Amino acid sequence: MKTNRMEAFSDGVLAIIITIMVLELKPPEIIDKEAFKILIPTLISYILSFIYVGIYWNNHHHLLYKLSRLNGQVLWSNLHWLFWMSLIPFSTAWVGMNPLETVPTIFYGVILLFCGISYLLLQRKVVHCEGRNSDLAKEIGYDWKGKITMLLYATGIIFAFWVPLISYIIYFVVAIGWFIPDSRIEKTIMK
Amino acid sequence: MKTNRMEAFSDGVLAIIITIMVLELKPPEIIDKEAFKILIPTLISYILSFIYVGIYWNNHHHLLYKLSRLNGQVLWSNLHWLFWMSLIPFSTAWVGMNPLETVPTIFYGVILLFCGISYLLLQRKVVHCEGRNSDLAKEIGYDWKGKITMLLYATGIIFAFWVPLISYIIYFVVAIGWFIPDSRIEKTIMK
Amino acid sequence: MKTNRMEAFSDGVLAIIITIMVLELKPPEIIDKEAFKILIPTLISYILSFIYVGIYWNNHHHLLYKLSRLNGQVLWSNLHWLFWMSLIPFSTAWVGMNPLETVPTIFYGVILLFCGISYLLLQRKVVHCEGRNSDLAKEIGYDWKGKITMLLYATGIIFAFWVPLISYIIYFVVAIGWFIPDSRIEKTIMK
Amino acid sequence: MKTNRMEAFSDGVLAIIITIMVLELKPPEIIDKEAFKILIPTLISYILSFIYVGIYWNNHHHLLYKLSRLNGQVLWSNLHWLFWMSLIPFSTAWVGMNPLETVPTIFYGVILLFCGISYLLLQRKVVHCEGRNSDLAKEIGYDWKGKITMLLYATGIIFAFWVPLISYIIYFVVAIGWFIPDSRIEKTIMK
Repeated sequence: MKTNRMEAFSDGVLAIIITIMVLELKPPEIIDKEAFKILIPTLISYILSFIYVGIYWNNHHHLLYKLSRLNGQVLWSNLHWLFWMSLIPFSTAWVGMNPLETVPTIFYGVILLFCGISYLLLQRKVVHCEGRNSDLAKEIGYDWKGKITMLLYATGIIFAFWVPLISYIIYFVVAIGWFIPDSRIEKTIMK
Repeated sequence: MKTNRMEAFSDGVLAIIITIMVLELKPPEIIDKEAFKILIPTLISYILSFIYVGIYWNNHHHLLYKLSRLNGQVLWSNLHWLFWMSLIPFSTAWVGMNPLETVPTIFYGVILLFCGISYLLLQRKVVHCEGRNSDLAKEIGYDWKGKITMLLYATGIIFAFWVPLISYIIYFVVAIGWFIPDSRIEKTIMK
Repeated sequence: MKTNRMEAFSDGVLAIIITIMVLELKPPEIIDKEAFKILIPTLISYILSFIYVGIYWNNHHHLLYKLSRLNGQVLWSNLHWLFWMSLIPFSTAWVGMNPLETVPTIFYGVILLFCGISYLLLQRKVVHCEGRNSDLAKEIGYDWKGKITMLLYATGIIFAFWVPLISYIIYFVVAIGWFIPDSRIEKTIMK
Repeated sequence: MKTNRMEAFSDGVLAIIITIMVLELKPPEIIDKEAFKILIPTLISYILSFIYVGIYWNNHHHLLYKLSRLNGQVLWSNLHWLFWMSLIPFSTAWVGMNPLETVPTIFYGVILLFCGISYLLLQRKVVHCEGRNSDLAKEIGYDWKGKITMLLYATGIIFAFWVPLISYIIYFVVAIGWFIPDSRIEKTIMK
């Protein structure tokens, strides 16, 4: 019962995050064909962030689906994770307005990195709450994938100092990496 | 149970989409009677988009109402459709600020077109998930109406190169066409 | 079951309407004591609109609480009402920026008037759906109060041509009139 | 049942409040390392407000969790509290744009103070509705903590006239004070 409340609140916040990014898309002043050129980096950054929020939404469901009880630490870890998630629209807007610039690219990477770290922390608290011998704990295991993702974000942040384009390629590759093996989650939840 | 979660999330996103369009309406600087003249194109584009989101909300309910289980493909098709829906406020704002201009009109039509295409894809995935012999599959059938709508959007986009006004007339006609046979949906769901 | 979905969607939209009005409040550029003077009309218009949305939220609950089934007409009447409600933040912002000016005051009154009219229409559709002999129909009755409110809004709009201040006084009086006899609703619902 | 509706509406409004604060964060024009310096006060004010909304969300749940019935006074006290909460994004934006300035600091403190006062009022109405001998009434007791908090906010507002920095330190200390003894709430709810 209590889990439902936290899920509903998180869903609400994620639904708002995924939608308000659109408010940061400013209609271009120009209305000839050039306008599309200006729109492209903005739209690409929007797509990237949309995919990230979508992946997190899916994973978050998966994580809470098997959680039977709550404690204060899970609650605050969840809010902590939502805090970093809530900075995605802001960093997306900055990146969209200044494509391929070093500082916004670093900032975007740092936000992704902290979204990931806070999610791993939430995961740990959930496992702790559920017990180390629970099904959930076994399923998550050591979470190599989560840890490699953190490393890739860090690499992306470092590349931003020289070639921001590579950073974005890394960010996209990570997104695709999480997007594809959705089938694994499917096996566990849906059947 | 799982269907409920996806429905609730989609409802949340659609509720936000339909509401944040208002944030794109900027109060005019002028405060004499001329202000209403400036407001009119903005309000018309808002009304059009509001009707579209309302229609999609109704149809989406209808579609998920009979769906008994979920898979990852339905989940991601739904997010894909929400992505295109989420661009409606942005394109509405652009159109409202530049009424009867070619480029924004094309952009608006393209967004409507992709909302429609992604909805048809979602519909196909839902039918696939539910089974080809299910009631849902029979009810949807070949969906001539959906396909003709796509054709009309494409026609609207082409007309935008010469007479944007005709594009908007087409967009409105499509909206009315979906709005009226609501009685068919009513027969199926409500009784 | 179906009523719940419509209620949840309406609640979502109303929650967003009541909250995004804040986004229209722009922090003043000045940061000395003069800033408060600029803030006052904005805050007053915000308070007025907040009370109106709060009252409508309460009444809408009351209306749907006893509704046992739905049809397409109720659904679209509800969306129609939400359309006018969604224009409240916009008109509040305009009024807050141009206090005591004729055109924004008229616009604000017109929005309130249409919120009221569309609510009365929704009420009629709900009664029609539930049946003329239902408890709900008897409770609502001829709804003198609703009709007098419409008349007061119209009076407010007319006064806006000469003395906008009187319009606001009327708008406030109506709000208070709906706010106070909350006890009547309480009697019916809560017990 | 009725309590659920009010909880869901409040959750919706709080989810929006906590998220739209991000919309007030404007991406800086500058994109070199200086940008981070401009971002810092904005981010700090955002963090502070995020923690406050998080704490209130937790406490609000705690308060309503044991409430078995509703009356109109609880309903309107809740809306009254949400009104003050809804001003947090606005005051956060103002403070973030003008760090360590007297007037915005006072305004921020006043909003916090009224959030607290309206919460205490809501608490009183809830206790009144539930009965003076209820478990809830005993648990809340005289609520020394709530009253001391009000005093600290008032102290913060007074300090803002001379050293706004001290005001923020007080606001942070209060937040930490509410954040830590979460364990007490945990004991009551979670077990």
